[in-house]
Amino acid sequence: MNVDGKHFETIWLKDRNTVQIIDQRLLPHKFIIEDIKTLNSIAVAIKEMHLRGAPLIGVAAAFGVYLGLLEIKEKYSDIPSDKELTNNEKIKIDKALYKAADMLKATRPTAVNLEWAVSKQLSAIKKCRTINSKIEAAQNTAEQIKKDDIENCRKIGEHGVKLIEDISKNKNNTVNILTHCNAGWLACVDYGTATSPIYHAYENGIDIHVWVDETRPRNQGARLTAWELGQHGIKHTIIADNAGGHLMQHGMVDMVIVGSDRTTHTGDVANKIGTYLKALAAKDNNIPFYAAFPASTIDWNIDNGVADIPVEQRDGDEIKYISGLSDGEIRKVLLTPEKSSALNYAFDVTPQRLVTGIITERGICKPDEIKRLFP
Amino acid sequence: MNVDGKHFETIWLKDRNTVQIIDQRLLPHKFIIEDIKTLNSIAVAIKEMHLRGAPLIGVAAAFGVYLGLLEIKEKYSDIPSDKELTNNEKIKIDKALYKAADMLKATRPTAVNLEWAVSKQLSAIKKCRTINSKIEAAQNTAEQIKKDDIENCRKIGEHGVKLIEDISKNKNNTVNILTHCNAGWLACVDYGTATSPIYHAYENGIDIHVWVDETRPRNQGARLTAWELGQHGIKHTIIADNAGGHLMQHGMVDMVIVGSDRTTHTGDVANKIGTYLKALAAKDNNIPFYAAFPASTIDWNIDNGVADIPVEQRDGDEIKYISGLSDGEIRKVLLTPEKSSALNYAFDVTPQRLVTGIITERGICKPDEIKRLFP
Repeated sequence: MNVDGKHFETIWLKDRNTVQIIDQRLLPHKFIIEDIKTLNSIAVAIKEMHLRGAPLIGVAAAFGVYLGLLEIKEKYSDIPSDKELTNNEKIKIDKALYKAADMLKATRPTAVNLEWAVSKQLSAIKKCRTINSKIEAAQNTAEQIKKDDIENCRKIGEHGVKLIEDISKNKNNTVNILTHCNAGWLACVDYGTATSPIYHAYENGIDIHVWVDETRPRNQGARLTAWELGQHGIKHTIIADNAGGHLMQHGMVDMVIVGSDRTTHTGDVANKIGTYLKALAAKDNNIPFYAAFPASTIDWNIDNGVADIPVEQRDGDEIKYISGLSDGEIRKVLLTPEKSSALNYAFDVTPQRLVTGIITERGICKPDEIKRLFP
Repeated sequence: MNVDGKHFETIWLKDRNTVQIIDQRLLPHKFIIEDIKTLNSIAVAIKEMHLRGAPLIGVAAAFGVYLGLLEIKEKYSDIPSDKELTNNEKIKIDKALYKAADMLKATRPTAVNLEWAVSKQLSAIKKCRTINSKIEAAQNTAEQIKKDDIENCRKIGEHGVKLIEDISKNKNNTVNILTHCNAGWLACVDYGTATSPIYHAYENGIDIHVWVDETRPRNQGARLTAWELGQHGIKHTIIADNAGGHLMQHGMVDMVIVGSDRTTHTGDVANKIGTYLKALAAKDNNIPFYAAFPASTIDWNIDNGVADIPVEQRDGDEIKYISGLSDGEIRKVLLTPEKSSALNYAFDVTPQRLVTGIITERGICKPDEIKRLFP
């Protein structure tokens, strides 16, 4: 989508050795492009959330495998890169490759896209018999995963916009959509998941307004969603995470759309912590609650999301401290008593019974119909 | 309760012309006592939240009426202060007094204690026939309201602690209590409402731990509740407002206790924005949800709290900016895109059906039994 009127994606290959990303930690105050040249740097960028969002960390991990392979080539420069690998060489390279893959997969535990993208890379690379062809395959697969993500997000928008159109026709007034966290283009490559129907509605001239949950503790709503919607010219208002229930009680929300970091094939939706509370409030007020995500977000192994999806616990300092702009500088301030401790779960799981529907690249279905949509 | 081992209350008369309060805007970083000498200063202190909490703003307003009367005496120094007022003089004094009362009542719209305390002052003052006796009555009434608040909070603790004791006996392990906002001694004069059962449990040697909701946007939980519990030595952990649902899903919360700014006689509980979301999650996970408050918080006129309790809307900048400690200084930082707007409702209303029980100075009852408890 647009930044200052210019089209941007969240990640791209600048040259053969350099991945570029938008450093999202500094938004909305500073728009900085970061060069990433090593496997380790991309792992740090994922773990420390220079970039985030389930689809985007999948794409980033795919580029991470590619950068990892470049390093492996350099490390084993004694192995001819254009000759078919011997059995011994293959064992060496595979060992290094799996180590890189495991390192990437360990960066963040909840989003299933990460594992999915790394596995996709590994099976593409495995087929190739020389180092150079493995590298080429890794580059092509990363680019393909990225291209697919853009296309999937576009289709999510095409399907999801119909829901907004329906409300708009019935209401004949501004459609108020509440979203939690950032499932925008900044969480993907372009369009976003939850925001794609919103961007499509805007392009179609539907009168929409977005309630942006601040999304503590990392404030992805207040920092990122507000910024990207504002850059694209979409009406929005930031609210505290506490406010959504009150707005719903008073008819100020027409629908909720969130993203997902992992959705079980049974329809339980893991998403940014606090999503479950909004789903409860939506249910209590008969407001439709949708989760939008591509197929790569679906977990086909876990049946009970609340019990079994691993929920990442991050540093309590993300709650105790916050960064913001003061006199043109980004400063970190302490919000709590220094001695108090804080507990920081990054996600929660909304059980299927609270989800009205899911929006995917293949269309919209009820949360218990995922298997029908993706047979 | 204690600050650095020394007992404090939140408000007191330092001398005949000076009310002292703890400036709560600076906590937990700085403990500053503020002198308040005028009606206008106390109105500003209530409105700008130098002090807050339904019971405390009631007490503060009562002292405000007293300070207002001192100013009225000065303004009408031509009227002999020890002589019975003539009809004309009475009209003048009453007019000034009602103006002061209206100004105080307009400072914050949601908490009913404010109106209650001011009315109590007016009826005490009305009976007196000289300016000096009116002033004396105002001082005595303010002190009495303060004394009653302490006593009511103490009793709330004595009743409420039984609920904690019961859980402790059944569980035979740490009792985890979640609270939202600050309904602590800082919101009252001493003990607090929601925290009084917690302080009593601590004194009785029960093993307790408190989940402190950060409570955006003004962070009364992270700043005030964490601070006062820490000062008193009570185990606590700060969590994002988003986290409570997840903790409840995973058996990490045994009960919820919150305060209230206004509770209808039918049992609908107005409290800090976000309380409703926690009540929904408690219900969804079969966790008892209690509201603790004195009788002065009960609204006997409104039947439907969600529809009819006036909910204060505060400045959106309370969401866009935040203050915290950086290099020993309290600094304000911008958290959002400068151009994005924010909407800031300060309260929401939890409908009676989600409330397990209420804890008052007269005991514990179901939310639909308030009339039985206060016939």
